[in-house]
Amino acid sequence: MRTTAYVSLLVAVASLQILPAVATGAAEQAADIGEQYGEVADRLIDAAMADDRAYERLALLVDEFGPRFSGTENLELALDWILEQMEADGLENVRGEDVMVPRWVRGNESAELIEPRPQNLPMLGLGGSVGTPAAGITADVLVVSSFDELSARSSEAEGKIVLYDVPFTTYGETVQYRGRGAVEAARVGAVASLIRSVTPVSLRSPHTGGMRYADDVPRIPHAALTVEDAQMLHRMQNRGERVVVRLKMEAETLADVPSRNVIAEIVGSELPDEVVVLGGHSDSWDVGQGAMDDGGGCVAAWEAVRLMKDLGLRPRRTVRVALWTNEENGLRGGNAYRDEHLNELDDHVLAIESDSGVFKPSGFGFTGSDAAYEIVRQVGRLLDRIDAGQVTRGGGGADIGPIMALGVPGMGLSVDGSRYFWYHHTEADTIDKLDPDEVARSVAAMAVMAYVVADLPESLPR
Amino acid sequence: MRTTAYVSLLVAVASLQILPAVATGAAEQAADIGEQYGEVADRLIDAAMADDRAYERLALLVDEFGPRFSGTENLELALDWILEQMEADGLENVRGEDVMVPRWVRGNESAELIEPRPQNLPMLGLGGSVGTPAAGITADVLVVSSFDELSARSSEAEGKIVLYDVPFTTYGETVQYRGRGAVEAARVGAVASLIRSVTPVSLRSPHTGGMRYADDVPRIPHAALTVEDAQMLHRMQNRGERVVVRLKMEAETLADVPSRNVIAEIVGSELPDEVVVLGGHSDSWDVGQGAMDDGGGCVAAWEAVRLMKDLGLRPRRTVRVALWTNEENGLRGGNAYRDEHLNELDDHVLAIESDSGVFKPSGFGFTGSDAAYEIVRQVGRLLDRIDAGQVTRGGGGADIGPIMALGVPGMGLSVDGSRYFWYHHTEADTIDKLDPDEVARSVAAMAVMAYVVADLPESLPR
Repeated sequence: MRTTAYVSLLVAVASLQILPAVATGAAEQAADIGEQYGEVADRLIDAAMADDRAYERLALLVDEFGPRFSGTENLELALDWILEQMEADGLENVRGEDVMVPRWVRGNESAELIEPRPQNLPMLGLGGSVGTPAAGITADVLVVSSFDELSARSSEAEGKIVLYDVPFTTYGETVQYRGRGAVEAARVGAVASLIRSVTPVSLRSPHTGGMRYADDVPRIPHAALTVEDAQMLHRMQNRGERVVVRLKMEAETLADVPSRNVIAEIVGSELPDEVVVLGGHSDSWDVGQGAMDDGGGCVAAWEAVRLMKDLGLRPRRTVRVALWTNEENGLRGGNAYRDEHLNELDDHVLAIESDSGVFKPSGFGFTGSDAAYEIVRQVGRLLDRIDAGQVTRGGGGADIGPIMALGVPGMGLSVDGSRYFWYHHTEADTIDKLDPDEVARSVAAMAVMAYVVADLPESLPR
Repeated sequence: MRTTAYVSLLVAVASLQILPAVATGAAEQAADIGEQYGEVADRLIDAAMADDRAYERLALLVDEFGPRFSGTENLELALDWILEQMEADGLENVRGEDVMVPRWVRGNESAELIEPRPQNLPMLGLGGSVGTPAAGITADVLVVSSFDELSARSSEAEGKIVLYDVPFTTYGETVQYRGRGAVEAARVGAVASLIRSVTPVSLRSPHTGGMRYADDVPRIPHAALTVEDAQMLHRMQNRGERVVVRLKMEAETLADVPSRNVIAEIVGSELPDEVVVLGGHSDSWDVGQGAMDDGGGCVAAWEAVRLMKDLGLRPRRTVRVALWTNEENGLRGGNAYRDEHLNELDDHVLAIESDSGVFKPSGFGFTGSDAAYEIVRQVGRLLDRIDAGQVTRGGGGADIGPIMALGVPGMGLSVDGSRYFWYHHTEADTIDKLDPDEVARSVAAMAVMAYVVADLPESLPR
């Protein structure tokens, strides 16, 4: 039965590669994928949705190990445990691949309003920032709403702490002030820089995250205040008051330390050298639990493959879970994976990442050829019964970026993003924000997409 | 014109006092109140809605003085400023009435998870709690979901820290664990007690609040963890893990110190001894800005009377702003007002409090006679154009509770309460959560209700 269908599918897929997809052709092929894989997809979905196992595994990971910041013992202990568990799950070729990672240490830190009145300002230093002298930096604050305003008022910035009070619009737009705020402030003579935390919602919660320096300007300390306090300091400035802040940060970057990318597989039955890799990043920031960023992505990929194993499913190609290290402040894991597997990348048929939180999934975003898009769109149809079948154009993930840049088709799990940035990089990134049913749907989506693409008669075209 | 209408209104009101309200009578009277007061109500509403003055005044209060906890210099400096501003506004009989208030001092405090792994647990001691020894209290934790479960497991509580992990249902129901949690835990031999913060939404934010002891059981330290951590400790216990916490609190209650109820008036033109008192409480907790609890209530009442003054409106009876002190941890202000004005209470025709945040107002909740309810309901109609005219049965406020207990009709401003408890008693009770338009509507509602009731031809019947 499989052989007959195989041939018809082969014809359909082959036709796609020489002709633009037409409505009838696509419909036929969709029918073929549906016929071939409908039953196995249902088994994977049913198994994923049968219990809260993925949620419980995630809760155990994040409760027992806490935040898993690069360079910490927490992360390495968590990786040891994951490797043990993957062995116990019966996955194959379970291993850690060595990666050296940066070690940024926050230390004690504080921001204190001195004028117009004393008050502690909750804050988080930004990852990679230099520290202050032990006595702190005490300076007048210049609040601006944008880089343009800083430019216009550059003559006022000398010797001051620049505070960017930038309302959240999109992450991509607003995060620029976290990324290059210190560089732009130092360029006009500021002695430190502060941002309004990158979030649409705050309960006086500072959000950390990565930042960078440039070689041609001094490295000044860079930290995030809360939305509430950034706005308050702005109001004070608008009232003509002198605003003075004392910033103290012990932050420093120590020598690189060893970490690991975690790998586990189900080796393909017919084409073991061809690989569908799926995963998330094992590290988190040093606050919260990293439950959605990105413990959930790791567990969704891992559980997807564990389900295949438990159901006795072995696809034609290899499915490989990869839990990349050091996404948050270095991307060393994603880069090391590219380097370690450079000779295999031509045989990577697809890379799938989940790094937007395992909220209710709607499908995937895909980056690859039109022919491949037609196929993965049709695979998506198998997930329609759990409303997770929408495959849209464009998508991937930070950790698979390095191999996507070398031609590997990439895909990111798409989820309801309405609350992700409330918790992002804060103490509030904890398991209770996630829903067991939504986590199970994420596992199901990852499992069906990875399994079917790994098992298709023809490799996904580039 | 006013005289003619006065007579017809008098008849309508008099008829209410001897007959049950009937549909036609009520409609007639509503028409009369509408005719008599529609124009002045519109002037008050228009003036309140014309600018952001109330919001700006509130922002100034909470930004410049910060939290205003009973017994602190912050509160007394804020009261000095308010008294000065009320004089400058041209209000009459502006004064502070002396009140001795408790002085609970939080000091340094922390909770640390020791087993199964070390982690800081964000917390806030509860107001009035005793402290721990300097080395802290380190003990095994017993997590329970209710007083009933504590009862059932009372034999396990000896020498432990009891943690109540109680999901938020209503404030009234859930806050019992804050109020009497220490008493019930001490009764079964616990050495300290912790609650899950009383809130439906958390970003790892601890919520403080009042608590009490009983004379017949030891006084043990009582503090709030975050929702997230209470749930995590509960999960750990459910997994069979030993959970150990170290609680350190320097909290202590010092000798009472002086504070003040702030009073300002527009003296009535015909019946100066009859009073409509309206207000909120000037104190807040020692975290956040107390912008909604209850800076906003204070400013709504104050601005309502300031608007009357600016519009040259002097009602027949006296309108009196009262900003009561020490609502949060003692209610000394509300009690002192009752004692100070005991001989005038028969002439207090209405007391109005705003203490639910100055979010979008829907009207008022009223406690008083049926006859009075019919009248204030009709006054409410004057606020229909800003959707703030709904007067419902039942309502008041903590600070006016003592005079309501002696027969003064009471009323509380009703507002959209959907987010109030997100911020309640936390660092996140800040001005940015409020909307200038909604604050203006709250001012308008307070102004119209207070003015019209103070000016009615007949006193509101008891």
